[in-house]
Amino acid sequence: MCWINDDGPMNEIILSSRVRLARNINKIPFPSIVKLEEAENVIKQIKEAYENENKNFDFFDMKSTTAVQKQVLLENHLISPDLMKKGEGSGALISNDKCVSIMINEEDHIRIQTIYGGLQIRRAWEEASKIDDLLEKNVQYAFDENWGYLTSCPTNVGTGMRASVMVHLPGLNISGNINKILQTVVQLGLTIRGLYGEGTDIVGNMFQISNQITLGRSEEEIVENLTAVTNQIIEKEKEARSLLISNSKVQIEDKIWRSWGLMKNARMMQSYECLKLISDIRLGVDLEVLPKIPLEILNEIMIETQSANIQIKYDHELNANDRDIIRAEIIRNKLRNME
Amino acid sequence: MCWINDDGPMNEIILSSRVRLARNINKIPFPSIVKLEEAENVIKQIKEAYENENKNFDFFDMKSTTAVQKQVLLENHLISPDLMKKGEGSGALISNDKCVSIMINEEDHIRIQTIYGGLQIRRAWEEASKIDDLLEKNVQYAFDENWGYLTSCPTNVGTGMRASVMVHLPGLNISGNINKILQTVVQLGLTIRGLYGEGTDIVGNMFQISNQITLGRSEEEIVENLTAVTNQIIEKEKEARSLLISNSKVQIEDKIWRSWGLMKNARMMQSYECLKLISDIRLGVDLEVLPKIPLEILNEIMIETQSANIQIKYDHELNANDRDIIRAEIIRNKLRNME
Repeated sequence: MCWINDDGPMNEIILSSRVRLARNINKIPFPSIVKLEEAENVIKQIKEAYENENKNFDFFDMKSTTAVQKQVLLENHLISPDLMKKGEGSGALISNDKCVSIMINEEDHIRIQTIYGGLQIRRAWEEASKIDDLLEKNVQYAFDENWGYLTSCPTNVGTGMRASVMVHLPGLNISGNINKILQTVVQLGLTIRGLYGEGTDIVGNMFQISNQITLGRSEEEIVENLTAVTNQIIEKEKEARSLLISNSKVQIEDKIWRSWGLMKNARMMQSYECLKLISDIRLGVDLEVLPKIPLEILNEIMIETQSANIQIKYDHELNANDRDIIRAEIIRNKLRNME
Repeated sequence: MCWINDDGPMNEIILSSRVRLARNINKIPFPSIVKLEEAENVIKQIKEAYENENKNFDFFDMKSTTAVQKQVLLENHLISPDLMKKGEGSGALISNDKCVSIMINEEDHIRIQTIYGGLQIRRAWEEASKIDDLLEKNVQYAFDENWGYLTSCPTNVGTGMRASVMVHLPGLNISGNINKILQTVVQLGLTIRGLYGEGTDIVGNMFQISNQITLGRSEEEIVENLTAVTNQIIEKEKEARSLLISNSKVQIEDKIWRSWGLMKNARMMQSYECLKLISDIRLGVDLEVLPKIPLEILNEIMIETQSANIQIKYDHELNANDRDIIRAEIIRNKLRNME
């Protein structure tokens, strides 16, 4: 997966950067009211347009994709919860390197998403724009001179763009300053969500920060603004981490090593605990309390230990207990030769 | 220390067996009201009597022994909390192998204590009796034909004997049957205490079980009775442990491995947590979940990580925080090459 392997800048604090562009095709009703025939026509147009330029992708038809497969795509940040609920007439084109996914007939006809490791908002935007340009050569977008890109939900009208970063802020959380920082972020017009977007819990000190406003700002401004705020958050988090080490070195070392001990030894582990421990271990690697465990390994654990990812590997129904056992096993195997 | 090194029978469940005999010298007032001069005369008599027969012991005068040294003796189960509080006119003869201690002018003039690893109540009794006989050749005990040995506190009159075992019952605790068992033990006339005797907390699933009654029963009967009850407790604990493995194998493995992970990795540890984790690890060794860690190592950790034991090694005042750090360090060093 693209963002997992990529050794992106600032990845000790920023897990990934994403851009999503919402687009619709002119004169075709929005997906919520479109007829199946027309919806399939949309799919056809997008597939053809993209196929002409790029062969390295797979198409997932939401009708034939199983519930578990959909869940895996969601867990891997490649489709949205909304698309997962769809069936016939919806689908997703996903690049082989998993950096790009084009969701078709989710809330809008087209949602282009790009994701890269670390702080690479601009890169994500540039890559999304390339696909945007490519599609635009082949389909006619619903676009208004005054409003910009027209979208199914008014909150996306304008650029139709949402840029986001996944930040990991254990330092600010432990030092008790996280709420102050997040409040400021919200005041600056940004939105904070959990690991899996809207309505998901915040676990493992990981926060998704994205622009709220799509209208009245250029894409360039959105990218600039989010990058600037993210850089400030990075500064604050770095400060908090170095204060932790100077003020409560042993306490923080103890916390980190205990989490390491649990990760290496547990025989059952729930997903929530796993994310909490990974948070401590990421912090430990950055603070050089732990040996230099590749962040790639930790990202892999985050992805591969999720329910559907586990389920699909074992190819049969597993209960929560079974999954907890397998999760602990995956973690131990991944970390076996570390230390 | 004798009970630590001794690979006693049933030591997967029984940590140690102890016998204590309370004796007083005829025509000298009990320690609570004795004059200093007479108290010192008692010390002199006992020292001489014992010295004639056995050279391998040290005498600790409660006047010149520092508070920390006294605390170490207490933590090592060699003196009682009561003796620790005493000063001039009190002391303890302690054998070099730490199996025997003779407290002088604690509650009674003489308290002979023997301690051995595992289930060895009879051996502890025999060894205590030898010392008893030896002293009796030299001093005249306060003894009444009807009452038996006379003691300062009426609860010790008769044999003056208290026999006890330190049992480790994690299986019965985890399975929820511990209270039922302990109630039965009490109904059988035995007393249950924590790791350091009367009034101390029960931690790490370790219980001290001893005879309540000293009067109207022979020493032989006390030993027999305690041994019989202990054997029944051992049976019940074994049953509980094997049920744990057959009914909740992964859960118990998870619990044990997590404790192992914490022991090997923590950078700070309180005494209470240490005992809790040791309990899990002892269970893990017995259930063959963990590799064969010598119980001697675990016993050493139990002793050496206690406050005064730590303090005396570092030869200066340490606060609780420092001790927690050193405790974790001792544990990691002891377990470094295990696994």
